Amino acid sequence: MILGLVKKNTYQDSVNLMLLSTRLTEKEGVRKVSIMMGTPANKDIFRNTGMYCSEFETANPNDICISVDTDSSEKLSTISEELDAFISDLSSSSSESKLRKAKSLKGALNKIENPNLAIISIPGEYVYEEGKRLLENGMNLFVFSDNVNYEEEKKLKEIAREKGLIVMGPDCGTGIILGVPLAFANVVSRGSIGVVGASGTGIQEITSIIGRLGEGVSHAIGLGGRDLSEEIGGISAEIALNFLKEDIDTEVIVFVSKPPARDVRDKIVEKLKQINKTTVAVFLGEKSLSQDENIHYVSTLEDAANLAFYLSRSKRVNKETFMVIKDRLDTLRLNPKQNRIHGYYGGGTLAGEAKEILAKYISSEGNKIIDYGDDQYTKGRPHPMIDPSTRIEAIKKLKDDESVAIVLFDNVIGHGSSTDMAGALGPHIKDVLEYKRSRNQDIVFIASVCGTEEDIQIYSKQVKELEKSGVVVLDTNAQVAKLGLEAMEYINERRTVEKSQSGLFDSELRVVNIGLESFANTLYEQNLSVVQYNWTPVAGGNKELQKMLRKLENL
Amino acid sequence: MILGLVKKNTYQDSVNLMLLSTRLTEKEGVRKVSIMMGTPANKDIFRNTGMYCSEFETANPNDICISVDTDSSEKLSTISEELDAFISDLSSSSSESKLRKAKSLKGALNKIENPNLAIISIPGEYVYEEGKRLLENGMNLFVFSDNVNYEEEKKLKEIAREKGLIVMGPDCGTGIILGVPLAFANVVSRGSIGVVGASGTGIQEITSIIGRLGEGVSHAIGLGGRDLSEEIGGISAEIALNFLKEDIDTEVIVFVSKPPARDVRDKIVEKLKQINKTTVAVFLGEKSLSQDENIHYVSTLEDAANLAFYLSRSKRVNKETFMVIKDRLDTLRLNPKQNRIHGYYGGGTLAGEAKEILAKYISSEGNKIIDYGDDQYTKGRPHPMIDPSTRIEAIKKLKDDESVAIVLFDNVIGHGSSTDMAGALGPHIKDVLEYKRSRNQDIVFIASVCGTEEDIQIYSKQVKELEKSGVVVLDTNAQVAKLGLEAMEYINERRTVEKSQSGLFDSELRVVNIGLESFANTLYEQNLSVVQYNWTPVAGGNKELQKMLRKLENL
Repeated sequence: MILGLVKKNTYQDSVNLMLLSTRLTEKEGVRKVSIMMGTPANKDIFRNTGMYCSEFETANPNDICISVDTDSSEKLSTISEELDAFISDLSSSSSESKLRKAKSLKGALNKIENPNLAIISIPGEYVYEEGKRLLENGMNLFVFSDNVNYEEEKKLKEIAREKGLIVMGPDCGTGIILGVPLAFANVVSRGSIGVVGASGTGIQEITSIIGRLGEGVSHAIGLGGRDLSEEIGGISAEIALNFLKEDIDTEVIVFVSKPPARDVRDKIVEKLKQINKTTVAVFLGEKSLSQDENIHYVSTLEDAANLAFYLSRSKRVNKETFMVIKDRLDTLRLNPKQNRIHGYYGGGTLAGEAKEILAKYISSEGNKIIDYGDDQYTKGRPHPMIDPSTRIEAIKKLKDDESVAIVLFDNVIGHGSSTDMAGALGPHIKDVLEYKRSRNQDIVFIASVCGTEEDIQIYSKQVKELEKSGVVVLDTNAQVAKLGLEAMEYINERRTVEKSQSGLFDSELRVVNIGLESFANTLYEQNLSVVQYNWTPVAGGNKELQKMLRKLENL
Repeated sequence: MILGLVKKNTYQDSVNLMLLSTRLTEKEGVRKVSIMMGTPANKDIFRNTGMYCSEFETANPNDICISVDTDSSEKLSTISEELDAFISDLSSSSSESKLRKAKSLKGALNKIENPNLAIISIPGEYVYEEGKRLLENGMNLFVFSDNVNYEEEKKLKEIAREKGLIVMGPDCGTGIILGVPLAFANVVSRGSIGVVGASGTGIQEITSIIGRLGEGVSHAIGLGGRDLSEEIGGISAEIALNFLKEDIDTEVIVFVSKPPARDVRDKIVEKLKQINKTTVAVFLGEKSLSQDENIHYVSTLEDAANLAFYLSRSKRVNKETFMVIKDRLDTLRLNPKQNRIHGYYGGGTLAGEAKEILAKYISSEGNKIIDYGDDQYTKGRPHPMIDPSTRIEAIKKLKDDESVAIVLFDNVIGHGSSTDMAGALGPHIKDVLEYKRSRNQDIVFIASVCGTEEDIQIYSKQVKELEKSGVVVLDTNAQVAKLGLEAMEYINERRTVEKSQSGLFDSELRVVNIGLESFANTLYEQNLSVVQYNWTPVAGGNKELQKMLRKLENL
């Protein structure tokens, strides 16, 4: 038999209701449990699934409705007790966290300065009213909720556009803004690839692959499943692309979605072409691999990630890496005479590659890339990939050389090579660094290790050993030379550093979270500025009454 | 003063001479030591560096010549003793290894069946005579030695071409053939990227980056520094490209060199265009990034590696991975009714991607990719990225399903997702596998994990957990679906498996090593078939006498 139970004024979010459902289903004698808040839409679901009970008639959106399929009517009291215990557990455990909380938007706004993002996960039918208020308070929206109708979605997005804001979603499952993962998202370091997509796990797959390859993401912006429909017309897609177009951290843009409505697709493609950056587009289901102006079309998520990785790596050096050594370069700028670059190479081709990349500087006096494998240095002695002595001598000489600011080198491991080149060069590098620092000077060593984890010297061990000695270690020799070039440009004051900031979110996120508290907790644990707005349906969810109350509020 | 010493008939290779040099230079009272075998070329070097002594006049290439700059003539006897000790140390330590050895080519050929590669590291002036004999015995050559003149290099390469063989080098520092690293090379797994290059550390950098990205190399063929000169005309480059063109393991070809002679460059480009495979060319120093038919031009080694990685990944699934499960697929072929594919997905877009890739099969009855995140499966229960229960049920049902052969699924980790989906699904998968195997059947589970090492679930942990349960785990969902497709093709007998074999080397290396014994030891340690030919100059290095002896040998 189907029995019904209503708990008045006990609003719970959907995750808690699911947890409760799982717990109750495990009870003996219970065949099926259905638990929802008493909204009109949910009452329809009860009806359609044959779980409706007369008790629900007077329930409102603030009331938990439970429908149980069981043989014994005694079960209902057990379930009622279980429910009380569950709710009291929840309130005690959640009060332990130091997350700031409010029961109204006003209260929330008092607890956070100038919030720029609201994450919304309340029932879809209430999203429009809340969303509008949040937009009016200058917040971008990340709408996790689904069941928002087209009309309301479009209205919210139009309001956002007018105000220079964006609505991600509704039904937006994932996003990464300024390096912060939102809702269902993966931890990926910050980098130069921006992602825009109408696909949750599509964005997760692309950003994860990029992360595992060692690259990073500037922003990943979810649009929700319907933004690219004819009805909505890609309003948020356009705003997101405009944003990444101007964003100085973003160098390559990936666009991912199912094939959108024809007109919308044309609009997106037109928009991508207007962007003075390399872009990768994957319209899932379209098979062609091709290039049209600055757009590379691919057909799988993996291809999108791998191609974006390649394209971003082939650009100039990663800004993040530059920022890591910026303070040290500032020290070097204090002594304009210490402005030269040296390269001490064992690998001939690697030396050659560095020379090409640094051609602009190598031609001028005092800058040099030396290939110690060249005949003139190897007469009667082993190759510098085996024997560190020629390079140790060069490193030692840096102590008394007041002109060198940047030193590049390679460490080629593998069969045949020295069993521990990092261990041989490292102490001498450390010694030079300590000597310079004792005189308030600095000198920047940048290197790469050529080899793999399976080589006897073990790639990661050699990297760590060099880092321990104070060397900046990058993935490849090209990256080393490119960072060397950037560093030279900077200390010679031919390049300024643009401060990272973004049109929609400035330089940090400040979040109001409305709905599922776990989203706020995740952000809180990352030391983000966040306040939890414990939303419950105003006036028992009566929309007419809500409107009147809001009018009174605004008086 | 400069003192000279000659040890008759004590031939040593250049590595040993360098070790000896290092040891002697450390002696007190010794300013400088120069040690070389008494070849005419070496005598010239003694003269040019002011280290020549009258004792060297009668020395021949089998005699060690030592020149010492010291204040005390007594040092000479110390050095002589040191030298004797060094040589006796060497012969006792090298006799410990079980590496097969011979003192003549004939002896070597008696100890190895049908060798297909000779590695040569004897003094350059003897390379031609030995190389010719080796080519005549059907071996490809890897010539590490330098100082081979143009004329001899060209002749050797022409002989090789006539015989359908290749000469790598002279002055070839690196190579990977059939997965075996030669001379100075890195350990990189076998895969679908072939590399040809006139650049040692260029090849090492490219293959290492490919290896660190998780891709593999079919062959990496070094050409030596002069193959692309006008004089040689790229003979070996052409042979190498023809070889990779036909090689079934190679899907993408990378060509790397300094800009070659104009005519040679044209020839290479023409050759690349004739290859019905994607190619990447990096002529170091040429800056343009462009595409011309099947050739992608890039300007750094990193770009070459990253682009080749992208291009090879976007091809159909890696053959190596297919071979890993081939035996299991053969079991499945025994029951032609067990020929269906299922996909149990949590991620909607990932399910969609799998459907696209498997479109050919999904349309037919019984094959299905289910998106368990779809509304019809999530009414009143958490999303399948959180709650494993719907997928556990599906997996359990496989026990009694005799039709399903291949099961694909995803495991999306990160914020919001289940803390241990692999741990939740794993035991049920293991159970199904054990059940099937107890009935001499099989079923193949293939999955990917979407996430990163920094996610709370930890990417590598989830991968290992799934592997422990018997799941084949690939890097990305596209790879999963592509392997699923290949597996379906195979068990439905719409695809045959081509046996991996290569025109120049058939399916395994069998090596004669002439010169530096360390090269042979490295191969021996990898359980390769190798014999060490302890070469010494015949007839004291007298070339006239050598020719006569060889004629007598051939009678």
